[in-house]
Amino acid sequence: MTFPAPLTGVVPPVCTPLTAEGEVDVPSLLRLVEHLVEGEVHGLFVLGSTSEAAYLTDRQRRQVVEAVVGHVGGQLPVLAGAIDMATARVLDHVEAVTGAGAQAVVVTAPFYARAAHPAEIARHYRRIAKHSPVPVVAYDIPVSVPTRLPASLVLELAAEGVLAGLKDSSGDLAGFREVVTGARKDPATAAFSVLTGSEVIMDAALAVGADGAVPGFANVDPHGYVRLYRLARAGDWEGARAEQDRLCALFGMTRAGDPARMGPGSSALGAFKTALHLRGIIACPATADPQIPLSLEETARVRSFLTAAGLL
Amino acid sequence: MTFPAPLTGVVPPVCTPLTAEGEVDVPSLLRLVEHLVEGEVHGLFVLGSTSEAAYLTDRQRRQVVEAVVGHVGGQLPVLAGAIDMATARVLDHVEAVTGAGAQAVVVTAPFYARAAHPAEIARHYRRIAKHSPVPVVAYDIPVSVPTRLPASLVLELAAEGVLAGLKDSSGDLAGFREVVTGARKDPATAAFSVLTGSEVIMDAALAVGADGAVPGFANVDPHGYVRLYRLARAGDWEGARAEQDRLCALFGMTRAGDPARMGPGSSALGAFKTALHLRGIIACPATADPQIPLSLEETARVRSFLTAAGLL
Amino acid sequence: MTFPAPLTGVVPPVCTPLTAEGEVDVPSLLRLVEHLVEGEVHGLFVLGSTSEAAYLTDRQRRQVVEAVVGHVGGQLPVLAGAIDMATARVLDHVEAVTGAGAQAVVVTAPFYARAAHPAEIARHYRRIAKHSPVPVVAYDIPVSVPTRLPASLVLELAAEGVLAGLKDSSGDLAGFREVVTGARKDPATAAFSVLTGSEVIMDAALAVGADGAVPGFANVDPHGYVRLYRLARAGDWEGARAEQDRLCALFGMTRAGDPARMGPGSSALGAFKTALHLRGIIACPATADPQIPLSLEETARVRSFLTAAGLL
Amino acid sequence: MTFPAPLTGVVPPVCTPLTAEGEVDVPSLLRLVEHLVEGEVHGLFVLGSTSEAAYLTDRQRRQVVEAVVGHVGGQLPVLAGAIDMATARVLDHVEAVTGAGAQAVVVTAPFYARAAHPAEIARHYRRIAKHSPVPVVAYDIPVSVPTRLPASLVLELAAEGVLAGLKDSSGDLAGFREVVTGARKDPATAAFSVLTGSEVIMDAALAVGADGAVPGFANVDPHGYVRLYRLARAGDWEGARAEQDRLCALFGMTRAGDPARMGPGSSALGAFKTALHLRGIIACPATADPQIPLSLEETARVRSFLTAAGLL
Repeated sequence: MTFPAPLTGVVPPVCTPLTAEGEVDVPSLLRLVEHLVEGEVHGLFVLGSTSEAAYLTDRQRRQVVEAVVGHVGGQLPVLAGAIDMATARVLDHVEAVTGAGAQAVVVTAPFYARAAHPAEIARHYRRIAKHSPVPVVAYDIPVSVPTRLPASLVLELAAEGVLAGLKDSSGDLAGFREVVTGARKDPATAAFSVLTGSEVIMDAALAVGADGAVPGFANVDPHGYVRLYRLARAGDWEGARAEQDRLCALFGMTRAGDPARMGPGSSALGAFKTALHLRGIIACPATADPQIPLSLEETARVRSFLTAAGLL
Repeated sequence: MTFPAPLTGVVPPVCTPLTAEGEVDVPSLLRLVEHLVEGEVHGLFVLGSTSEAAYLTDRQRRQVVEAVVGHVGGQLPVLAGAIDMATARVLDHVEAVTGAGAQAVVVTAPFYARAAHPAEIARHYRRIAKHSPVPVVAYDIPVSVPTRLPASLVLELAAEGVLAGLKDSSGDLAGFREVVTGARKDPATAAFSVLTGSEVIMDAALAVGADGAVPGFANVDPHGYVRLYRLARAGDWEGARAEQDRLCALFGMTRAGDPARMGPGSSALGAFKTALHLRGIIACPATADPQIPLSLEETARVRSFLTAAGLL
Repeated sequence: MTFPAPLTGVVPPVCTPLTAEGEVDVPSLLRLVEHLVEGEVHGLFVLGSTSEAAYLTDRQRRQVVEAVVGHVGGQLPVLAGAIDMATARVLDHVEAVTGAGAQAVVVTAPFYARAAHPAEIARHYRRIAKHSPVPVVAYDIPVSVPTRLPASLVLELAAEGVLAGLKDSSGDLAGFREVVTGARKDPATAAFSVLTGSEVIMDAALAVGADGAVPGFANVDPHGYVRLYRLARAGDWEGARAEQDRLCALFGMTRAGDPARMGPGSSALGAFKTALHLRGIIACPATADPQIPLSLEETARVRSFLTAAGLL
Repeated sequence: MTFPAPLTGVVPPVCTPLTAEGEVDVPSLLRLVEHLVEGEVHGLFVLGSTSEAAYLTDRQRRQVVEAVVGHVGGQLPVLAGAIDMATARVLDHVEAVTGAGAQAVVVTAPFYARAAHPAEIARHYRRIAKHSPVPVVAYDIPVSVPTRLPASLVLELAAEGVLAGLKDSSGDLAGFREVVTGARKDPATAAFSVLTGSEVIMDAALAVGADGAVPGFANVDPHGYVRLYRLARAGDWEGARAEQDRLCALFGMTRAGDPARMGPGSSALGAFKTALHLRGIIACPATADPQIPLSLEETARVRSFLTAAGLL
């Protein structure tokens, strides 16, 4: 299949189910993919932040792409993260994931590396795009990469054909709108895809003109996010808002973990995987080291959110 | 040779000379190592930030460790960075660099990964130490890894035997002193090595009790840093301060790059490599992508610093 | 008049026109107030950030409140900032502005003062509310006060009757939504007013349930913001979005100032006042020291935005 | 007396004792001043951060300056903070404190106000110096004012005669050294005074060339800080380090407050005042609202530090 230009719709970043020993649980991963496909999502994004890409070894990353592409390749567009510190390392991942069949790569600004000047970021993306056999989507996720991607730079690289899209997980709707509006004005960026990474303001992002969304929480409730997307596309903004409010309440489960015991990442990913486990989709709720697992009490909190939402 | 406990002295993070094509220039690397050995440094740290570890592929990282260990193994302690986002990925690097002969590994807190809670950092280091065949040195470098390592946590992990040392590149002398003082008080941490990563307050770090230093700028002037170390060890604090002031003035070269064209990282690493090139030690001043190369005018600035210091 | 509970609609933070000598230009201030009243705004907020409260002396602050209350008191609700570092200083401002007739006070978390713990913020607001003769509105403006106001704390203080509303200038729509949703669920907070301070995502804030907005840029185009508010209230979300997009384009004038010469604050406030001057509303575009004035070229940029929008 | 140029020695920022009702306790304040004079300090800094200037009303600030100047005026140099958000407000404080007899004013970069561009900071200090009847000392305290003062800007304003000194509370010894070294090189800045605000690396600051120190903790143990200063001036660096290490251990009392109950500011200032109370110097350990008071258990922790140090 051809990669859609622009990519639209709900494209969940797919969780990576693990065994208790920390290995990729491929059968669970494929059940999760089935669950998402059954929810009628519009594409899949593997090896993103929600996929715990930062925690997976190169071998595990390859395993994930191969398994998912092997299962749904041709049926749905599959994007893969090529998450690493700087250009050469990213290019190695680009080679690996496209070799395994990914149809687009998702790439952040350099991190750890001190290369945050706009000229350095531009050089990074230009070089990656030059060597990538597939479209490159920029990834703005300040919680992980402190360097923000300025709207003007994104639009410049989009117009050059370096970037095919943006996944914006910044929560900064004003900056997001600037990219959407800028891209819409220029015929050179007509096929540029502007995607929000937010789970809780997806309705607002669609209202300002987003092409779609990459909501991590869609692992747990893909049907809800697809419903929200369709309501927005149909112009039923009140309906979209009501669905979003429902999902926001459910999203409260991401605070299940006690902040005295763990950081917000352990809590959120722990809640996602615990919910998938409780719903019978994955075999084990384990998150990767050094994240802290949810306790029994914290697991019960996740369960009560699911029960209240009728998802158990 | 046995790895020293505690490690002391001047342990430069070794620059990684590159060809114009971005490949590791092994002959230049070995000439640089010779230059450092001739400067009588006390150890070598490869694959650190100054080594552009974030920019090197896994293949290039292996090449560097093998070349350096092959050249000076047994003569000088060689530490290697195992710089990656989270536990499992770090462990892969630990395996690679120790397989190539590194005698200690240098490891940061998780980055990109959202695992900044003290319990998560502790779990990270404990798991790495459990699986590492060699001592683990913690690396606090806020310019690259926003998560700071609290003094109390470092001391706790030191007392447990999880950490063999700390390389502190934070510039925060008050926090550094807390670790030094804490380590000195407890027999369980008698062999714990507290190293400063600063090039410009090394005299002060030694005065508060540092065991040694890992100054990136020692690539350019190893003799100066060794002289400074010896003066401090001899209790000649006025002499140490004068040598440090001389090195600080020379360090001004790291601002050779125009901030309108590049970030401070491109400027500093560009200056280091340009200086090594001008001094005839490495064949090419190239830094890794996406860093911006110094212009002719910026190169001339570096040259004038070297000339003023009598290093050309 | 009774202060509305909840306060709704468009409540511009009123610019403070200055003479070339830096004194409050009262006739210009009253013309600006007339301009806003004529634009059918729903209230006025004096001594906010857009009013340059941080730059005005206590004498000038009093002058502003007295002039505005004297002119429109009884006709429109007038809120006043009581912007200072900690509790006792804020209370002095509360006394001054309510003495001059302000009907509500707008108060940030402590700043400069190191009192950012939730317990310290709560103590601050509780003490202020206890001593204030008028309702207290919390002000979350991270660009000026790094301490964020957590949604849970705002809701707790709202339920206690300590806070009558929130002006959120954070740009963080997800956090904003959490306050809106939380306030809506609890009868104790039925009259709590949730206001956005954003000029560029006001449509989205209204869509998620905001009671109103406090957009600084409404000084320049109050009619636009009131139109946007009415479209949203009528449920015409496409119309609201189109108006917002128009205002966003016009808002581009806030980048008129050259970033090599000045910071974003000088540029934005300079553009606001220059536009008001060009539109004939205020006598002089001066901003307070130490802000940098716009050059002729930068002024021309502002003019071209106004011309394009038909506002000249 | 003439204000010393450069100012040297130990210049404590004087705590402001309060009554239980939050008013300035002048008799306690004067006893504290006596305690400091008896400790042979070289000057006094009132209305700084340690003095809780951010928490005091204008009336209380005046009370403090008048009381202290009235008590020691002519005997010791008295500097006063003119801490406020931007230029005009600062100038009002300059007038108030110099009217009450302060011999120098201490001024930060603008805060709350968005004026962080070097050109804006320069304009701020130039205007203040032009209107101040006494020397102006710049104050770099990132924990309160996020805008840092770049070394190059400080040196430029020093050479112009705008600034008479710098109080650096950043903890960044590398930047501090840059100012010291720069000031020493230029005859135009021979009388420029570079002072550290750190309590725990004062020995290191003196070793790199500081003229003196403004340590808040000298309220509690002025004799120790004066001893440290004299040892350093005598070139007895080992002795200075030992005294500093002793003071660092004692400084541990600033963590007496439980971080679950309060922020680090409440804990540190609470410990300072509790220690002064336990030592019989001030009548009441109250800190200003909204800081959280120490509990009995936390007070006992402070007491045990004092006991261990033989200060009770």
